[in-house]
Amino acid sequence: MNYQKIIEEISAEVLSSEDNGKVACYIPALSKVNPHKYGINLVEITGENFSFGDFDEKFSIQSIAKVFSLLMAYSIEGESLWKRVDVEPSGDPFNSLVQLEYENGIPRNPFINAGALVICDVLFQHLNNPKEDFLAFVRKISNNQNLFYNKEIALSEKEHGYRNAAMINLMKAFGNINNNIDEVLDFYFNLCSIEMSTKELSNTFLIFANGGKLVNSNEEIISGSKTKRVNAVMQTCGFYDEAGEFTFKVGLPGKSGVGGGIVAVYPGKYSVAVWSPKLNKKGNSVKGMKTLELLTTKTKMSIF
Amino acid sequence: MNYQKIIEEISAEVLSSEDNGKVACYIPALSKVNPHKYGINLVEITGENFSFGDFDEKFSIQSIAKVFSLLMAYSIEGESLWKRVDVEPSGDPFNSLVQLEYENGIPRNPFINAGALVICDVLFQHLNNPKEDFLAFVRKISNNQNLFYNKEIALSEKEHGYRNAAMINLMKAFGNINNNIDEVLDFYFNLCSIEMSTKELSNTFLIFANGGKLVNSNEEIISGSKTKRVNAVMQTCGFYDEAGEFTFKVGLPGKSGVGGGIVAVYPGKYSVAVWSPKLNKKGNSVKGMKTLELLTTKTKMSIF
Amino acid sequence: MNYQKIIEEISAEVLSSEDNGKVACYIPALSKVNPHKYGINLVEITGENFSFGDFDEKFSIQSIAKVFSLLMAYSIEGESLWKRVDVEPSGDPFNSLVQLEYENGIPRNPFINAGALVICDVLFQHLNNPKEDFLAFVRKISNNQNLFYNKEIALSEKEHGYRNAAMINLMKAFGNINNNIDEVLDFYFNLCSIEMSTKELSNTFLIFANGGKLVNSNEEIISGSKTKRVNAVMQTCGFYDEAGEFTFKVGLPGKSGVGGGIVAVYPGKYSVAVWSPKLNKKGNSVKGMKTLELLTTKTKMSIF
Amino acid sequence: MNYQKIIEEISAEVLSSEDNGKVACYIPALSKVNPHKYGINLVEITGENFSFGDFDEKFSIQSIAKVFSLLMAYSIEGESLWKRVDVEPSGDPFNSLVQLEYENGIPRNPFINAGALVICDVLFQHLNNPKEDFLAFVRKISNNQNLFYNKEIALSEKEHGYRNAAMINLMKAFGNINNNIDEVLDFYFNLCSIEMSTKELSNTFLIFANGGKLVNSNEEIISGSKTKRVNAVMQTCGFYDEAGEFTFKVGLPGKSGVGGGIVAVYPGKYSVAVWSPKLNKKGNSVKGMKTLELLTTKTKMSIF
Repeated sequence: MNYQKIIEEISAEVLSSEDNGKVACYIPALSKVNPHKYGINLVEITGENFSFGDFDEKFSIQSIAKVFSLLMAYSIEGESLWKRVDVEPSGDPFNSLVQLEYENGIPRNPFINAGALVICDVLFQHLNNPKEDFLAFVRKISNNQNLFYNKEIALSEKEHGYRNAAMINLMKAFGNINNNIDEVLDFYFNLCSIEMSTKELSNTFLIFANGGKLVNSNEEIISGSKTKRVNAVMQTCGFYDEAGEFTFKVGLPGKSGVGGGIVAVYPGKYSVAVWSPKLNKKGNSVKGMKTLELLTTKTKMSIF
Repeated sequence: MNYQKIIEEISAEVLSSEDNGKVACYIPALSKVNPHKYGINLVEITGENFSFGDFDEKFSIQSIAKVFSLLMAYSIEGESLWKRVDVEPSGDPFNSLVQLEYENGIPRNPFINAGALVICDVLFQHLNNPKEDFLAFVRKISNNQNLFYNKEIALSEKEHGYRNAAMINLMKAFGNINNNIDEVLDFYFNLCSIEMSTKELSNTFLIFANGGKLVNSNEEIISGSKTKRVNAVMQTCGFYDEAGEFTFKVGLPGKSGVGGGIVAVYPGKYSVAVWSPKLNKKGNSVKGMKTLELLTTKTKMSIF
Repeated sequence: MNYQKIIEEISAEVLSSEDNGKVACYIPALSKVNPHKYGINLVEITGENFSFGDFDEKFSIQSIAKVFSLLMAYSIEGESLWKRVDVEPSGDPFNSLVQLEYENGIPRNPFINAGALVICDVLFQHLNNPKEDFLAFVRKISNNQNLFYNKEIALSEKEHGYRNAAMINLMKAFGNINNNIDEVLDFYFNLCSIEMSTKELSNTFLIFANGGKLVNSNEEIISGSKTKRVNAVMQTCGFYDEAGEFTFKVGLPGKSGVGGGIVAVYPGKYSVAVWSPKLNKKGNSVKGMKTLELLTTKTKMSIF
Repeated sequence: MNYQKIIEEISAEVLSSEDNGKVACYIPALSKVNPHKYGINLVEITGENFSFGDFDEKFSIQSIAKVFSLLMAYSIEGESLWKRVDVEPSGDPFNSLVQLEYENGIPRNPFINAGALVICDVLFQHLNNPKEDFLAFVRKISNNQNLFYNKEIALSEKEHGYRNAAMINLMKAFGNINNNIDEVLDFYFNLCSIEMSTKELSNTFLIFANGGKLVNSNEEIISGSKTKRVNAVMQTCGFYDEAGEFTFKVGLPGKSGVGGGIVAVYPGKYSVAVWSPKLNKKGNSVKGMKTLELLTTKTKMSIF
């Protein structure tokens, strides 16, 4: 498959199409990004990279980091993790607090904010220095020491994080948070502030295309069976209230972030990341969604 | 892969395990089934069948029929179908009516009852004799004239179908039902009353493993691209409020029914149906779920 | 108290104030009313009437009729009535269906549509000719044979009544409707189509200011204790999602209808009806609310 | 009216009746109370007291204190107060968070926790020393220096107050909280910890029966018109999700607390407080409700 040619064709088509999306503006630090940025990087399981545009520029990966925290917590805690967070897609965000109420403080999945907060609480119990240890973990699986939290973003999130504070308090009321609320929130806001380029992101996600093993060292981080499960959760829960739409149009497990990044995985074949900051109403990158839809359409390859 | 051996091993394990499930009893006609029935049939895309137990006995496929009505409506109506029904997983059934309210009468997906009713309304507009034409369609794609509605089941559903009547009236209030409510409901209740064996079911679903073509004649019913989309909708929406769990544990697109049947598809490889009437609280066959989980675990093959 | 002078002062003030309300338009038959109609009639318990404007013109009383159906059902059924309908205010209409779900088909109160439908179902069981018998009852308590259903309004309601059909079907699913759904709905739509003038309405409601006795004959229709309870239900539930606002600003038990009528009662003193077709967003007459607020402000008399 | 005789008769009847209620146990400090305590005090507007049982023993007034904070905030802020909190009854507590979401952070009324927190936030802006100033205000209107916060209760509430923290954070996300969350919560928890006897409580509430004036000094704290409005809010919102039931059975404005206290007011006539710690499922004192129902039944006097 000539991925380089396909990527260039797709990028040309996407860049010339209309985009009514809007850059995330709920925190000032995110709203400053250049809305016209566009980058894509596909890496085959063999390690070969195909790139276009701003593929090498770092951006705020935001919710995509929740896949890393899930990976780390799952590798430490094993299947008992699922006593504290479910694997079902959530409905409309409108219902997020009432769902927590109705389901006794057990979040629907690890990718909605409530679920990611529980994952942070789990990690907080196991790690000596949560922020340092988590960053070390991400650096290890990405084989890249050049990764950092963006302190400005983390602080900005904290200052506007009252809705997350509402959720973690509600879960604490149900006994599903064990550590100090402020510390867990701080850990969570930092975690979401990590910055990566599409090239770094797609290469890091190759672990999910490779059965849980790092491609460079062949070290197994989690088992093949667990990897399939993480991919399954990405498939059903990776795109907020648009997971069905993404599965329907793209047909690959993936995860998006409000920074405009989307990463997807073809098990056994490749990982691909795309970045374009303008978001649709559901909070997913307009051009990112379009790019990946065209990718699986043109290659005629999806897991379905 | 020695599917026969695997199926027999799995069946032995499943049949010896505990099962706290309960046979569906919301209508008398369904509650009369022998709760200890168990059958499985896997058919490869080559047409080779592997069977165990009551694989040849017909049962009420119930909601599984919604995949056939979706297939028929999608093949007739094309992508405009999705203006009237979405492809997102639904949350808890508790919220089904409020979701319809909040989303202006557009059901979340074609497999929840509200969505299946809209699909029936779509078919009703296109078909001269909806019940006859639909049955003819199912007989054609299954290459099997020996398929029938169960009139007793259909009548029993109708007599207890007030919740479905509530939903279709609410959608009519929003302008998303175009035909006579009583006639659409009657069509819907008949549709869900079709009876098939696991052998018949798995062979009929082979079309979804075969890119939309009938395996015997190679006739294309829907395009490969549309087939992938139907599979995607099964993946995210096929198991009521347990779609995430099924994706997580089994990792194949599929559909369940309250008659105790489950059918799943491995695109390009096989289709498998299992039947055991006792259901868990979410309305899915306990032994059916367990059987398919063991199948993808033992074969180490899932789409993820 | 010089009620005539007060009424004229209030009317002048209200008629010169701005009114951004809109005439009910969900059925064509209601939308044809002249939006500038305005009438008020206050009748003391002694029988003396004070009037202004279109006080003698009949209009569609709509939901106000629910007080008559409650009165009749309560007088027949007694306290066991409250097993099938509660006396709590409802929240937002947005939640009406989910509240029914959550509370197992028991409507929150007899004045929301779901509750009024249950009341109709109760009457249907007791009456030989529901429509005729109910009309006879209203004529009796109003001492007025010149009262009729408006068949055009009733038919128009029926043709647009899918939301009510949704609710009654949901309640039937919970076992809280005993009679034929179509017949109960027909009864309900007729009941809401009764037409009365503000003079007729206020005189009929005098029974609630008079401890349950007809003022002309002194016949007791319901006991004083039950009358207080009906007044209490009007106070907490009589104005859709604006019952608190009406209690806060007016401080009298009352009931409104989407025809633009409002009637209120001062126990032991008077009954007052006002009519102005333009409604606020909550479905209550803008001028009607304002008129009654001024009435209790100027007279410095409310039950609080 | 021989109130002393009536009170003794009612008490005898209530004390001999069954009571399946349960003492509030969500915080340890509250659960230690003797469940068999029972006291009642009725005070006429003339100042004459009628008492029975443990009428002179202090207990935790809990939510009843929200009437005092409303009174103080309303007297300072005037009608602009209602921009930040509504006067509508709330539905089921299950919906409390979703109602806040749906209504953009504006609580339904000042007596649900969310509304009381907003009232605290309002007071916090106006008072130099919120806790001291508020206590001074309550002492003044009760003409009683012997009133105190219970620090143990306040601390215990704080340690279990995650649900309140969830709500205040959600409101802050909507911009309806202006002060520091932890400080407002601390103020709120203290406020609810005030202890009073039924005699003290009923005498303090006499202001609401007396048009907003202190009975001993005739000093006007709020106007007669505002007093009617506070009474109206008590009527529609004073009993959690049982306001309709209380209005229906008792027919007086009032307020309850989870400490087992209930206070009610007959404008122009009397104020009455009753205390019995065992609560029904809605959080209201079983014996307290029964007592007041019998009071208005036996005296044949209610506002309706």
